[in-house]
Amino acid sequence: MLEKYIDAATRRKKADLVLKNATFVDVFTGVLRKGDIAIADEKIVGTGEYEGETEIDCTNLTVVPGYIDGHVHIESSQLSPEEFASLIVPRGTTTIIADPHEITNVCGMAGCEYIAKASENVPLDVKIQLPSCVPATPFETSGAILAGKDVEKNIKNEYIFGLGEFMNYPGIVYSDPDTLKKAEAAHAAGKIIDGHAPAVYGYDLNGYLCAGISTDHECVTKAEIDEKISKGMYVHIRHGSSTQNLGNAKYITDGNMRRFLLCTDDRHAADLKEKGHLDDALRKLVANGLDPIRAVICATLNAAECYNLKWRGAIAPFYLADLVVVDNLKSFNAKYVIKSGKTVAKDGIPLFDTSKRYLPKNVLNTVHLKREMRADDFILTLKGKKAKAMTIEPGGVVTGCEVVEVESKNGDVVVEGTDLLKLAVVERHKCTGNIGKALFKGYGFKGGALGITIAHDSHNIILMGDDNESMAKAANRLKEIGGGMVIVERGAVISGEAEKSPRYEYKIYSLTLDIAGLMSSRDAESLQADSRALIEKAHAMGVKREYEAFMSLAFLSLAVIPKLKVTDAGLFDVEKFAFTDINEE
Amino acid sequence: MLEKYIDAATRRKKADLVLKNATFVDVFTGVLRKGDIAIADEKIVGTGEYEGETEIDCTNLTVVPGYIDGHVHIESSQLSPEEFASLIVPRGTTTIIADPHEITNVCGMAGCEYIAKASENVPLDVKIQLPSCVPATPFETSGAILAGKDVEKNIKNEYIFGLGEFMNYPGIVYSDPDTLKKAEAAHAAGKIIDGHAPAVYGYDLNGYLCAGISTDHECVTKAEIDEKISKGMYVHIRHGSSTQNLGNAKYITDGNMRRFLLCTDDRHAADLKEKGHLDDALRKLVANGLDPIRAVICATLNAAECYNLKWRGAIAPFYLADLVVVDNLKSFNAKYVIKSGKTVAKDGIPLFDTSKRYLPKNVLNTVHLKREMRADDFILTLKGKKAKAMTIEPGGVVTGCEVVEVESKNGDVVVEGTDLLKLAVVERHKCTGNIGKALFKGYGFKGGALGITIAHDSHNIILMGDDNESMAKAANRLKEIGGGMVIVERGAVISGEAEKSPRYEYKIYSLTLDIAGLMSSRDAESLQADSRALIEKAHAMGVKREYEAFMSLAFLSLAVIPKLKVTDAGLFDVEKFAFTDINEE
Repeated sequence: MLEKYIDAATRRKKADLVLKNATFVDVFTGVLRKGDIAIADEKIVGTGEYEGETEIDCTNLTVVPGYIDGHVHIESSQLSPEEFASLIVPRGTTTIIADPHEITNVCGMAGCEYIAKASENVPLDVKIQLPSCVPATPFETSGAILAGKDVEKNIKNEYIFGLGEFMNYPGIVYSDPDTLKKAEAAHAAGKIIDGHAPAVYGYDLNGYLCAGISTDHECVTKAEIDEKISKGMYVHIRHGSSTQNLGNAKYITDGNMRRFLLCTDDRHAADLKEKGHLDDALRKLVANGLDPIRAVICATLNAAECYNLKWRGAIAPFYLADLVVVDNLKSFNAKYVIKSGKTVAKDGIPLFDTSKRYLPKNVLNTVHLKREMRADDFILTLKGKKAKAMTIEPGGVVTGCEVVEVESKNGDVVVEGTDLLKLAVVERHKCTGNIGKALFKGYGFKGGALGITIAHDSHNIILMGDDNESMAKAANRLKEIGGGMVIVERGAVISGEAEKSPRYEYKIYSLTLDIAGLMSSRDAESLQADSRALIEKAHAMGVKREYEAFMSLAFLSLAVIPKLKVTDAGLFDVEKFAFTDINEE
Repeated sequence: MLEKYIDAATRRKKADLVLKNATFVDVFTGVLRKGDIAIADEKIVGTGEYEGETEIDCTNLTVVPGYIDGHVHIESSQLSPEEFASLIVPRGTTTIIADPHEITNVCGMAGCEYIAKASENVPLDVKIQLPSCVPATPFETSGAILAGKDVEKNIKNEYIFGLGEFMNYPGIVYSDPDTLKKAEAAHAAGKIIDGHAPAVYGYDLNGYLCAGISTDHECVTKAEIDEKISKGMYVHIRHGSSTQNLGNAKYITDGNMRRFLLCTDDRHAADLKEKGHLDDALRKLVANGLDPIRAVICATLNAAECYNLKWRGAIAPFYLADLVVVDNLKSFNAKYVIKSGKTVAKDGIPLFDTSKRYLPKNVLNTVHLKREMRADDFILTLKGKKAKAMTIEPGGVVTGCEVVEVESKNGDVVVEGTDLLKLAVVERHKCTGNIGKALFKGYGFKGGALGITIAHDSHNIILMGDDNESMAKAANRLKEIGGGMVIVERGAVISGEAEKSPRYEYKIYSLTLDIAGLMSSRDAESLQADSRALIEKAHAMGVKREYEAFMSLAFLSLAVIPKLKVTDAGLFDVEKFAFTDINEE
């Protein structure tokens, strides 16, 4: 094995591939260098003057190490790992630390295994973090539970790289035994633990870190970054679709430079396709004033060091030949992407088969209802004239709680003709029959229902509507298609009187997310076209443009982010960390 | 396990130990911070305001992480690991990467095991590198051979941390299969390989690095450092007794800062006792203008990163509580040393039992001769009037070759009355009876013989003298005492005529190095007193002050350093990498 590298390095034999006349980023000294980069098999073997069996002329081009995304949920793209790779590899990303938190909440370990196996077909190194918080809270029904003992068992798997973002910060700080068991199991297996600690400071942060947690991607202030880095955390600069903190790059100093890396966390297919992946982060970071070499170091060497990805993230002998040939360090347009010594993309086009899909049965058909839903399942009986209604704060994930005046009729709250809508979370994993109900104010939608099987973090069915029958039809359609997005539009009265037991015409529009109800096995382009059409339909039916028609819905069940949320088990006050009564005195 | 840390971190329970009111170096951001440092069991659990069961007031003192010596041969101190620790731990060193190259050349794997087990008794983490070059060359008889297959077997041992400095650079660059097998075995075991590549550049360096080698401690120029760091090596700044390159610190830049660490390589007991260990390096680096925080980072975090010593080398929650309380970042006088949460030294005095010795039989009595040596074993018959003689170049390890005029009498070269001395390497491991002979010019010694069982790298007996009988007696005494240093002084004629078969009075002075003939099981102080007396005796007998009486001798057999050397197998021309004839035309 070594002989071939050494023969090529010393020029006794031709290299397999040579990037000729390159300018390249030396991440170890932080300068640009010039020369040929020689590759044998999957390794860089040397820089200098080389001849290769294949040569790529890199005159006037710049070569950087392949990018490493330090924290990403592939599921947020709604794409299969294969299709995801086909979008990000041509952008220059060659390694990702993937936390399959969403699919594992639906499918359990089968979700992790699926992501791992599906990724074997593509030229992208996908390091799988075992999700640490399945379910995210005990106040909901998820498709799977990974208790301490389950983590103990599964963290040892060879394909598991580490333990995923530890969101259950109170569980650690208050020393919950089952929570600590998870961290202890990761340490026993010698595996890294990712963190997630928004606004955790001081002694709480000390306690949290005493579980041996290495990273945070939730920093928002200079003080937070300073404290977290000084206490040993690596800090991810995040370039997600909704949540971004690229501005944190301005807190990079000579002293703390090595502790910053890049991640995308949650990034939609449309952004990946139109704007890019880490290349887009690099472009924006440099446009905002970050030194381009530093930006590259964050995206490569720093991430490799953080995750102990030895021999990766640099252009040097014996390093993995993961390379991106870009036009310059301003545009970061990837002309060629080399993964493990093979040219896998050119001018943004993948050179690998993007049509393969690994699709095991245990991630398909994941919508299970106790029985067919009926209109009266969505009756919401209130005690009086006042009730709590959810709102969405600017930003899209934090919700508000507003006390509203309500009218009822036949034991059901009246939402038609108001700016209120019914919200329902229908349990879809264990056939419990659970339905959590709430009111939402100000979404704007009228005349039916919309629903989706992405509902963080347990991914039950979340529905919103002003018509019980529409909501039932929406749920039933989602079951029928095995998960996805749906709009039910109530049309004209087709029998009976409008005032008394009318029967309406209904139109149903849906899009299938066949993989766990979260992702599609289709190609990004056709999926997006259909998705856009469905989103436009929702807006046409009144959803305000300030909301992401379906994805805003998907966060209304996330019971770890303030203020008022709804799970399949009921209305939840996140600040009190307890269920709450919808009725107000 | 984690619960105790977290309880202390969050102040629910008292910490075990608190360093109160400390100023401390934050290696992650490169600044000084103030606060209490709380410790529970072996871990740092937090910084802030804390109470502890025990408290140490650190007002006006500065706390730094325990130092990590990136590359050291304990044997060079001539002390047992226990005694070595008793000298360096009170100086602030808490972790060393130890390469037992010398003792392994004598005792094989028993040498490695001995260093590992002896180190268990002391509060110093000793990470054992399996020596990669045993023997150093095929041109000598060593006590053991670690071929590729032996490395394959032993590198997997849990107590083996990595593969020691790979000195056989031609073996790699020319793809010698057995040499590559060693590197491949280290990679298969997931273990680091230390380098040793003096003046290796360009394509040779590329080839060398393609064996997956991580470090170098032999850099002497800016260009060399720049190339080696840019090609991925970590560079040790060395503070040995003879070989030092502290000046390399001036090549530290913002860009390459994280790739420098400190080591001592070979440091004598006297220097350890009188000047110090890495504390002395830090003192001198800072005196020479290196920023003190950077100096500390090199000695701590950088070394921890290089050797993947996770949770070590920083003052932060969950990091190992290896700490040094110093007076300031200029003097670096260690007031307290904390190892794994325990106070193990105060004001330079160890607080641990320094008298324990682990002494297994297989590292004792390691001098084995085929038979008792006789005077005529040291007859050196030359063909003519000219012969090659060794000299020592300034610096002490590079030798010269000078052609000298010689006289012979009774078939033996005459050295008495000349500035020549006989040099002999007597094989002492395998009872081969091998004696390599040479002439040395200009050492100054007269009237007997001196000898030592430290003779790099195979550590046979090396003798120098002007009297065959004295040389035989010296060898026999070294066998008798199981290794060490000896002086035989020829005195007055006690019978016969001075001109014809005289019998002389002989005085023998010796010092025992019972452990492998390399190290003593005694305490440093009494050993040094005796050692100093013996060295003074050698100088009194004429050894010039420019030489280290015994240690200069010890390098005359090191057949990898130019120019002329002698091994038990004969006179060796290092530049031709072949044996050579002592006779000149």
